[in-house]
Amino acid sequence: MKNIKIQAPATVANLSCGFDILGLCLDKPFDEVEVDKINQKKVLIELVESKYSNIPTDPRKNTGGLPAIQIIEDFKLDFGFKIKIKKGIPLCGGMGSSAATASGVVFAINKILNETLTDKEMLKYALIGESVSVTNPHADNIAPCLFGGLTIIRDTKTLDIININIPDLYVCLIHPDISVSTQDARDMLPNKIKLTSAVKQWGNIAGLVTGFANGDFELIKRSMQDEIIEPVRAPLISGFYDVKNKSMDLGALGCGISGSGPTIFAICENKITAKKIMDFSKNFYRNCGIDCDVYISKVNHSGPNILK
Amino acid sequence: MKNIKIQAPATVANLSCGFDILGLCLDKPFDEVEVDKINQKKVLIELVESKYSNIPTDPRKNTGGLPAIQIIEDFKLDFGFKIKIKKGIPLCGGMGSSAATASGVVFAINKILNETLTDKEMLKYALIGESVSVTNPHADNIAPCLFGGLTIIRDTKTLDIININIPDLYVCLIHPDISVSTQDARDMLPNKIKLTSAVKQWGNIAGLVTGFANGDFELIKRSMQDEIIEPVRAPLISGFYDVKNKSMDLGALGCGISGSGPTIFAICENKITAKKIMDFSKNFYRNCGIDCDVYISKVNHSGPNILK
Repeated sequence: MKNIKIQAPATVANLSCGFDILGLCLDKPFDEVEVDKINQKKVLIELVESKYSNIPTDPRKNTGGLPAIQIIEDFKLDFGFKIKIKKGIPLCGGMGSSAATASGVVFAINKILNETLTDKEMLKYALIGESVSVTNPHADNIAPCLFGGLTIIRDTKTLDIININIPDLYVCLIHPDISVSTQDARDMLPNKIKLTSAVKQWGNIAGLVTGFANGDFELIKRSMQDEIIEPVRAPLISGFYDVKNKSMDLGALGCGISGSGPTIFAICENKITAKKIMDFSKNFYRNCGIDCDVYISKVNHSGPNILK
Repeated sequence: MKNIKIQAPATVANLSCGFDILGLCLDKPFDEVEVDKINQKKVLIELVESKYSNIPTDPRKNTGGLPAIQIIEDFKLDFGFKIKIKKGIPLCGGMGSSAATASGVVFAINKILNETLTDKEMLKYALIGESVSVTNPHADNIAPCLFGGLTIIRDTKTLDIININIPDLYVCLIHPDISVSTQDARDMLPNKIKLTSAVKQWGNIAGLVTGFANGDFELIKRSMQDEIIEPVRAPLISGFYDVKNKSMDLGALGCGISGSGPTIFAICENKITAKKIMDFSKNFYRNCGIDCDVYISKVNHSGPNILK
């Protein structure tokens, strides 16, 4: 294989109580990544014009470029890659945009290399990509992006990832045009938390994982709570609680901050509920004078979609 | 039904990373609880002589007596109960001794009342029993004792309990003759913990619950870690790390402090491994000059065992 084109999907990290350990793969939005094997032992990045195309083309500064360079080095390849990226996932939105590019490139290169990389190696290289955009990167976007479905990142250090089969659910992503830096959203978190809060959180995590695994919607609903991270970050997102409360009223199973925000996710049993939440949110932010993109997506069970 | 006799089993709370939210039911040791319906509207407690029979017979001070009184009041019963208790579970050992009496009495009375109580009501009354022996009681012993198997206590306030089907496993309980007060073991815990430690812990909880649900022994092994509570309480239990390290060497899936100790539990895939750990531990504590009781038990999937 000398050429491959894929869709690398958006992901929702954290899912309320699962801060840094849970991630969910969606169908859209997505980045398009096309990789060509080239004779020169180098990495070329080409950006296809899109609404979000202001990312670096210097491969060392690009979340897809750096892992490509590293793979060429580590596997002593005598060829290189031309990587064409069409960004479809808003940058710094909390939808795993940088992870999608990183994972998409690693996934595509692995196909060109006849699936030489193990799952753990794919994670490792995609994480190298993530390190371009954030210090101390986590795997809660790259893991679901690479493998699909709901992933538990049991341990980032050893890249111990567990995939959980979950039902077909719909997610409404609400992305208000508010600037939230991933690094700032991380830096504002407390170093220490109350043990009682932590215990509440781990009860909810155990409940949420079990709810997803068993398709127990009521349990998902009861468990998708976060009293630790969400209250700290919510003030960064104008209208967060309005959207959250209304989403729950409209029938969402859970609603929270996607990754570090400002995107808000609402998980729904069906498309009709997701559509109602979309309509409300669009209207709400229009009335606030804030631009807002909204996406409705099914859960993606398999990861990147191969286009050719 | 006017009379019932049951075995109320020991339970392992916490299971390393699941502090206050996980509990596992065993076959043995157990308390024997016999309840007779009596004409007088009162509660009588009778103790059958055993190694651990030094518990109060005043029903208001007995973990089985208090819920019985409360049930008579709440359900406006015009009769009462004679409760005969033969303690088989060591007191203050970390094996859910007080919970077994409380749950056993509630379970037995519920049978006499033709299963009038809902699961949540059973939990509520058993928790009232627990409050006799500890302030701010938790449901991580009573829930598995009442319902069997592995239980998640998602939320103690609302008594939101989730039961997880798990494989047939063996547990070795090692109970050295060391005094650890449940209240002291709780009071010594920190009020606050590092967010990074909490994140590690919730990764492990998600992994452990999934490992149990899927019968994935390797995942159970990787996840059964506790860097928050165990290091604080371990110094109370002489020889804890010797037993733990050797148990893991001998093939345990996990080993930690049962409840607030001093009992040490080791979860094993089979009886042979449990037996090896038993032999080592007996010998180890004998050499230390510390008395030690050891039990090997299968996981109990159904809760109290009805004898007649």
